[in-house]
Amino acid sequence: MVGPPLLQKIVSMHAYRSHTCGALRPSDIGQTVRLSGWCHRIRDHGGVLFIDLRDHYGMTQIVVDPDSPAFRLANEARSEWVVRIDGKVRARPEGTINAELPTGQIEIYATEMEALGPAAELPVPVFGDQEYPEEQRLKYRFLDLRREKLHANIMKRGEIIDSIRRRMKEGGFFEFQTPILTASSPEGARDFLVPSRLHPGKFYALPQAPQQFKQLTMIAGFDRYFQIAPCFRDEDARADRSPGEFYQLDIEMSFVTQEDVFQSVEPVLRGVFEEFAEGKRVTGEFPRITFAEAALKYGSDKPDLRNPLVIADVTEEFSDEGVTFNAFKNVIKAGGVVRAIPAPGAASQPRSFFDKLNDWARSEGAAGLGYIVFGDESGRLEGKGPIAKFIPADVQAAIAMRAGIGAGDAVFFAAGEEAKAASLAGKARIRIGDDLDLSDKDQYAFCWITDFPMFEWNEDEKKVDFSHNPFSMPNFDKDAFLALEAADKDTILGIKAFQYDIVCNGIELSSGAIRNHRPDIMRKAFALAGYGEDVLEEKFGGMLRALTYGAPPHGGIAPGIDRIVMLLCGEQNLREVVLYPMNQRAEDLLMGAPSEVTPKQLRELHIRLNLPQKG
Amino acid sequence: MVGPPLLQKIVSMHAYRSHTCGALRPSDIGQTVRLSGWCHRIRDHGGVLFIDLRDHYGMTQIVVDPDSPAFRLANEARSEWVVRIDGKVRARPEGTINAELPTGQIEIYATEMEALGPAAELPVPVFGDQEYPEEQRLKYRFLDLRREKLHANIMKRGEIIDSIRRRMKEGGFFEFQTPILTASSPEGARDFLVPSRLHPGKFYALPQAPQQFKQLTMIAGFDRYFQIAPCFRDEDARADRSPGEFYQLDIEMSFVTQEDVFQSVEPVLRGVFEEFAEGKRVTGEFPRITFAEAALKYGSDKPDLRNPLVIADVTEEFSDEGVTFNAFKNVIKAGGVVRAIPAPGAASQPRSFFDKLNDWARSEGAAGLGYIVFGDESGRLEGKGPIAKFIPADVQAAIAMRAGIGAGDAVFFAAGEEAKAASLAGKARIRIGDDLDLSDKDQYAFCWITDFPMFEWNEDEKKVDFSHNPFSMPNFDKDAFLALEAADKDTILGIKAFQYDIVCNGIELSSGAIRNHRPDIMRKAFALAGYGEDVLEEKFGGMLRALTYGAPPHGGIAPGIDRIVMLLCGEQNLREVVLYPMNQRAEDLLMGAPSEVTPKQLRELHIRLNLPQKG
Repeated sequence: MVGPPLLQKIVSMHAYRSHTCGALRPSDIGQTVRLSGWCHRIRDHGGVLFIDLRDHYGMTQIVVDPDSPAFRLANEARSEWVVRIDGKVRARPEGTINAELPTGQIEIYATEMEALGPAAELPVPVFGDQEYPEEQRLKYRFLDLRREKLHANIMKRGEIIDSIRRRMKEGGFFEFQTPILTASSPEGARDFLVPSRLHPGKFYALPQAPQQFKQLTMIAGFDRYFQIAPCFRDEDARADRSPGEFYQLDIEMSFVTQEDVFQSVEPVLRGVFEEFAEGKRVTGEFPRITFAEAALKYGSDKPDLRNPLVIADVTEEFSDEGVTFNAFKNVIKAGGVVRAIPAPGAASQPRSFFDKLNDWARSEGAAGLGYIVFGDESGRLEGKGPIAKFIPADVQAAIAMRAGIGAGDAVFFAAGEEAKAASLAGKARIRIGDDLDLSDKDQYAFCWITDFPMFEWNEDEKKVDFSHNPFSMPNFDKDAFLALEAADKDTILGIKAFQYDIVCNGIELSSGAIRNHRPDIMRKAFALAGYGEDVLEEKFGGMLRALTYGAPPHGGIAPGIDRIVMLLCGEQNLREVVLYPMNQRAEDLLMGAPSEVTPKQLRELHIRLNLPQKG
Repeated sequence: MVGPPLLQKIVSMHAYRSHTCGALRPSDIGQTVRLSGWCHRIRDHGGVLFIDLRDHYGMTQIVVDPDSPAFRLANEARSEWVVRIDGKVRARPEGTINAELPTGQIEIYATEMEALGPAAELPVPVFGDQEYPEEQRLKYRFLDLRREKLHANIMKRGEIIDSIRRRMKEGGFFEFQTPILTASSPEGARDFLVPSRLHPGKFYALPQAPQQFKQLTMIAGFDRYFQIAPCFRDEDARADRSPGEFYQLDIEMSFVTQEDVFQSVEPVLRGVFEEFAEGKRVTGEFPRITFAEAALKYGSDKPDLRNPLVIADVTEEFSDEGVTFNAFKNVIKAGGVVRAIPAPGAASQPRSFFDKLNDWARSEGAAGLGYIVFGDESGRLEGKGPIAKFIPADVQAAIAMRAGIGAGDAVFFAAGEEAKAASLAGKARIRIGDDLDLSDKDQYAFCWITDFPMFEWNEDEKKVDFSHNPFSMPNFDKDAFLALEAADKDTILGIKAFQYDIVCNGIELSSGAIRNHRPDIMRKAFALAGYGEDVLEEKFGGMLRALTYGAPPHGGIAPGIDRIVMLLCGEQNLREVVLYPMNQRAEDLLMGAPSEVTPKQLRELHIRLNLPQKG
């Protein structure tokens, strides 16, 4: 194109920017550039205006002096105005270089400025670190999202999901989309329902998980499924559970054993965590801990393995006839257990440390936590504390050995019916670990929990019932399982399922299972738990029928994406890692949802309101 | 591990497969292998059984002779049983090699067989090409999906989405997830509603598109957004529109002009289509056709450019005083137009060709299609046909020149009020192109349609109204726009919007626009169309407020994923490219949705049924 130089320059310049706000470097000095962005901060230094111009990519310092044609508008501009600025790149004067900013060696001397999007006074400022109430932040989410930390979290969320997707594909998985308008699924939580216009009186449900669809996809022969799947549960919100909707990395595989699932999922999770851990350690090989072992050692099926404490069973020691501490003896006589929680180094703690733990235990409904503090008496371990005198020295030594402790340490005891004692010990383990600051927080500590019991005793109804997921495959010879009868109660209660959890830092990321793909075994499992065909039909009829047309053995898992992102962003609340979250009352304050609808809409959907009585 | 060789082999063999059904090659001959899969076809050749064992990865021939321990079960097995087979890889005998199968040079001599998932008699066979009724296919979708073509379509869908995602990321876009439980959006279609349990009488809506969220994401400063976004519209189904839900490649960009959107989106679409076109041509540079030009040349804003015919305006020619064809003359006098549709080579067509087109035109409500057939009379063009005699030779020659035709060709005419004549000409263009088989179907012919009018005359209400999307930016000087008044009707009706469509093979993949990010211009646009602040507030209040806190210029587009996949799979119905589609009555026959819910669920959601009267 031929023309006068000035015209040519105008023609070739983009309407809004020649560079982003993160692009310019000393090598650009002397260039005429055009930037657009938000006025992050405007400072007046003796009549010269300095604007930190911000966009997604970075921040650039703009200088507007009173001689510039841009000055009039720059003087009018306020925080968060969107402006276009033309100017010349120049080196920052000595002493004003900002080494922390990639553009910190240059600034733009503005010659022209245009207001692209002026901003009214802000209800939530973007600049600065001030905290704002959640309701305000959510209502003006588009302003909150401009703040550095939240903006970075959301971008990190995207990178994490990209990494997960890439690793799943490298692992030979294929991505699918399953329906969102579907039927109620037997996941156990409350469904969100969608009234049907075409079918009066009928409703769709939003999927609590694509569980049935992923199994059907295996039955359809697709072999290795994954989906970054939106899931919907109408449950009350918690910090670690988004109200309404959340995402899970939904996975299913055909022709696999439990070990195959572990071998496929573990490298993905380890890889993602290593990629985004920012120097924190990530478990190498994830330990596998049986449900029973986890209950004993950690008093929980979600052990936080950053905490090094391991609970020991000392029922045998307290059964010793030399022990005269009758509170525990009576517990044991009634069939209960005594668990020991080590407290390394606690001997140096003041009395208040022990008293506070006891108070806490009582607030948990326990009689208290007995404890022994171990000292060194001429090279011999000597126990002290309120109950030490009821325990002979050799038993004290045996207890110390079980708990893996010695002089200078202490041990606490939780006694009672097994499940209650285990749970109390587990909570005490966390508390003692926190109080003594024993956890190395600079790590992501993973484990698998395996061998969940298939059935449990329902004391209320005096019958065998399912423990967890009725649709998992029992880890039991198939023919022997089919031959079981109600009278084989002890055998039945001993059966484990091919069901597993993946836990990181004490947070359950997901349950998973090898599915029961055999209709005969499914029917038997329901029969053993005392359910009729009608219950099975109602909960699982469609799937049961699908299984009769050639189903492969299959299994999977579904780690929570939001929880993974939350862990990797170091956040305590899902709101900090979700682009447009609802508040705890399941309201979208930004868009104003839920909201009232018109009578016409209700009529079309064949429903009427049924409002609670006022007052 | 030390042990007897046999034990070692058993220990090291996976429970279900050492190889997939697509893996084995002549280099594996002699190996002992384990395969699992579906019995695709079982043939009995003189007492020896041949099983085509199928999995996701391929098909392998299994041979079971009566001496094999596997024979008893193989003899019992039926189509679609899932079985595990152990055996030895051997070369197929000469003459039985299948060159079309990657595993076609080998077979497995089975030594052991296990039924992993027997199959009942199939309601929809998998083997063979027989067609089945849609209802049956959808009810047993997991069987339908095992068939080769549908299985391949679904896998191709996944690859296409992967390719789109990769290209978007390479183009500097970031992927986000916007809410699915949200508020009603002003997209114009009917919302799916979700009653709120916590907020009696209030409802969420499923997003018809994440339109507002993507704009808010730009206002939040994220610069380049995309999402493979599920969208929901409660509209009646069509073959090219999934009932209920569909996916779109949702895109939005900040600090861009319309040209930037074209430059960003065009390479993605062209790249994806080239990647999956399987040899078909893909438009190099997508032509840009204004809305007005498309209406004239193609009689449609969704021109199928595979059809080479171009409509011409011949109003001027028919206005010639030498023309005595009064039907057209009267149309022109009344302000109408005459459009010419060329029919190259049609002179050799029988009379019935012309009669059928005329019949068709009458079925479309037109008086008919006039036509002229051109012959060569001693080197001079001579028109024939019912109306030729009313048109002088020089005018005939001028018409032929306008229509770009000569001797041996014909031209049809559509006359009437401009919009109607254009539409009729457009339909005739398609029909003539089809009848004469003029389209080269081996191509994906793209174009952009641009310069949609911002406003149009609403004849019913005798007022200016919005033509399309009221939220697009007018292509008009901003200050001049703000100064417009209702009296400037002609100017207003001449204003174009920065709004565009992307069309492929006559299918609209998406509309897009540069958004109106200026609240003052938005208010003016609504005022010019005669709407009060209340309408703007109701339809767009939240967004309008967001625009007041520093909004960047932004725009985007949202090509339909399902339509792209449908085009690339050569399918006519979305059902063939969606994993679990609903039927045309928006029913999920597989899962049984929608379905009835319990009175307790209704009570919890504060609604009652309001069923239509019976009979």
